[in-house]
Amino acid sequence: MAEKSFYNYRVEPQDVDFTLRATIPSLGAAILNTAGADAHGKGFGVDALNADNHSWVLSRMAVEFDRLPGQYTDYTVATWINEYGRVLSTRNFTLTDAAGTEFGRAVTQWAMIDLKTRSAVDLSWVGDAHADAIVDAPSPTDKPRKVRAVQPTLTSEHRVAYSDIDFNRHVNTMRYIEMMFDMLPFELLTEEAPVRLDMHFLRESRYGQTLTVGCELRGREALFEIRADAETVAVRASVAWN
Amino acid sequence: MAEKSFYNYRVEPQDVDFTLRATIPSLGAAILNTAGADAHGKGFGVDALNADNHSWVLSRMAVEFDRLPGQYTDYTVATWINEYGRVLSTRNFTLTDAAGTEFGRAVTQWAMIDLKTRSAVDLSWVGDAHADAIVDAPSPTDKPRKVRAVQPTLTSEHRVAYSDIDFNRHVNTMRYIEMMFDMLPFELLTEEAPVRLDMHFLRESRYGQTLTVGCELRGREALFEIRADAETVAVRASVAWN
Repeated sequence: MAEKSFYNYRVEPQDVDFTLRATIPSLGAAILNTAGADAHGKGFGVDALNADNHSWVLSRMAVEFDRLPGQYTDYTVATWINEYGRVLSTRNFTLTDAAGTEFGRAVTQWAMIDLKTRSAVDLSWVGDAHADAIVDAPSPTDKPRKVRAVQPTLTSEHRVAYSDIDFNRHVNTMRYIEMMFDMLPFELLTEEAPVRLDMHFLRESRYGQTLTVGCELRGREALFEIRADAETVAVRASVAWN
Repeated sequence: MAEKSFYNYRVEPQDVDFTLRATIPSLGAAILNTAGADAHGKGFGVDALNADNHSWVLSRMAVEFDRLPGQYTDYTVATWINEYGRVLSTRNFTLTDAAGTEFGRAVTQWAMIDLKTRSAVDLSWVGDAHADAIVDAPSPTDKPRKVRAVQPTLTSEHRVAYSDIDFNRHVNTMRYIEMMFDMLPFELLTEEAPVRLDMHFLRESRYGQTLTVGCELRGREALFEIRADAETVAVRASVAWN
């Protein structure tokens, strides 16, 4: 049985918006970055998998922030894997400030894809090969919640460009979050209230595709559906402020 | 007289494109981040200036990369100020890998603005107050070059949204670079050749403005002009691959 791993970060000027508090995408980037670094350090990172023409892709993500730390705040991201299913592995995170106060948490579920077929592969062997990487600790919050079909009251278009694409050659998760947040009113985005974000990644978006971002705003909750075309939903997500 | 300061970074998964080498915006972010952290540590960071309703804004930038480091490469950014003019201060950077080989360098020129009037203030007092922060070392390459008027052969539009805005409430430098690069062919973007980027920031771009990005591609050089409207040029830039 393994222990949780800890990674230290600081809220840099590039991570804050005009309220001088960290943006949710910047904290999300630190969370996913921690996942990559931890997998890398333990020998099952994207770089190692690529050798076998495999890669991790994020399938579902739930992120909660009680508050958004201010510029130059030091914080620690703890991460641990507590489950390998046949298709999804579950990696958890908590974010704590220098005083040890937890201000955020996340539960992410990852699939391993074959880079040739772009389809998910059976994870059982990973669970066996890396059983010693599993930490016997529960997830810090509910797993990513299903986001029901969305009735957009607002839509925007985004043509996928070079800067949207990550090492997996598909649209970067933080870019999706930015596309969604860019449709929300400033009042919500700069609220000092606890927020929870749930995202489901249903289909990859690739270079050159034109995405339609649909938003259904209902009070202090926003539902999103990002489509590559009429048939294909790429992402469903919800953001809720307490 | 002060000495150069050194800051350590690593090329994280979020910093690379599908070639698994660091993107120019990710290295540019590390450079500007180093500027912010170093000014902060020396007591004349944006946070200290904001108390007096002032802020640093980047006026001109020249960045050169001999090569783009691969994922998980550790590198060090050295930074030093070697000049305070009446309007601009010059901050320099070199990027070196773990073997001590320099692979990139930058010269940036900063103005201090009054946050009420958004106009530049006289820097003489900063030069006096922080003369001990000046390092007696030349800039590592030519200062930012003037970019002549551009005849766009290609244009794209970008409406400035929440995720484009930084702590200064104007469009983030890396975003400008991404807007420009997203107009270039993959072949150039993924070239393994030395590249130099020159940028002039002539006018701030603010939330809600619709920017027109004009690109004049001439062989291995691209010239850019970003306009808020027919009269107002916000940014002029050039990117040249050797």
